[in-house]
Amino acid sequence: MPLKKPIYTTPQDTENAFYEAIRRADLDAFMSVWAEDEEIICILPNGPRFSGYTPIREAWRRIFNSDQHFTIEVSQRMVMPNMLVTVHNVLEIISMLDETPEKGSGKVTPILATNVYIRSAAGWRLLVHHSSLTTPGPDSDSNQTLH
Amino acid sequence: MPLKKPIYTTPQDTENAFYEAIRRADLDAFMSVWAEDEEIICILPNGPRFSGYTPIREAWRRIFNSDQHFTIEVSQRMVMPNMLVTVHNVLEIISMLDETPEKGSGKVTPILATNVYIRSAAGWRLLVHHSSLTTPGPDSDSNQTLH
Repeated sequence: MPLKKPIYTTPQDTENAFYEAIRRADLDAFMSVWAEDEEIICILPNGPRFSGYTPIREAWRRIFNSDQHFTIEVSQRMVMPNMLVTVHNVLEIISMLDETPEKGSGKVTPILATNVYIRSAAGWRLLVHHSSLTTPGPDSDSNQTLH
Repeated sequence: MPLKKPIYTTPQDTENAFYEAIRRADLDAFMSVWAEDEEIICILPNGPRFSGYTPIREAWRRIFNSDQHFTIEVSQRMVMPNMLVTVHNVLEIISMLDETPEKGSGKVTPILATNVYIRSAAGWRLLVHHSSLTTPGPDSDSNQTLH
């Protein structure tokens, strides 16, 4: 029997499933949160723009198959709700778990992510994930420039 | 007479006004594209999350008042339209214009930006601007990692 994809009744359910799939490095579960029949976009820190199911799946297959083990915690969520499209912005804290110091064990990376969810016949699905490096203390004073 | 804010009838009109205001370093025009009565978010490369009218205005006042002169060109636009909320993703190319080489004249920085627009009684307005550094060739192969 083919795997039946879950139906998420709120954007928050979709977001929870997204980060839980990342924690478990479960590629099928990860891909099941994305919208179908839509142009989908995934941008990771300092990376290119991946658009479409296959490029996004391939990028995350490489991440999940790499020897970089990490945890990801999400906080400071802002929600901009709307009827058919809802935008979340969160702070992701990624902690590397590799055992050897030279691999950067314990390194903590703060990332800001904009997640856009769209309501479809199959429930709320992820349309855009745009994540990028940020300064350690978000909402703090900063001297960032445009280059 | 107080300045009457323009009403943008499409998200593209709003986006054009946004980048044109940046090119002219026109802070009032720049702020007039943002949504009112909404939580608005602005994230710049490697920077913190600015939310709310005043922090965003202050961040851009500093940029416009700095001695960093630049041009900004937008291409590779992807549009995910919807009735009340529309998402654009664009490649921004920022070129520094300073005259002295030590200031980085001619330096070109590729940036990916997700712009979320919301339809309000006052037309389409900007809800989220999230921009971040990318590799020189977007959509190209990459080896970016999560840290």
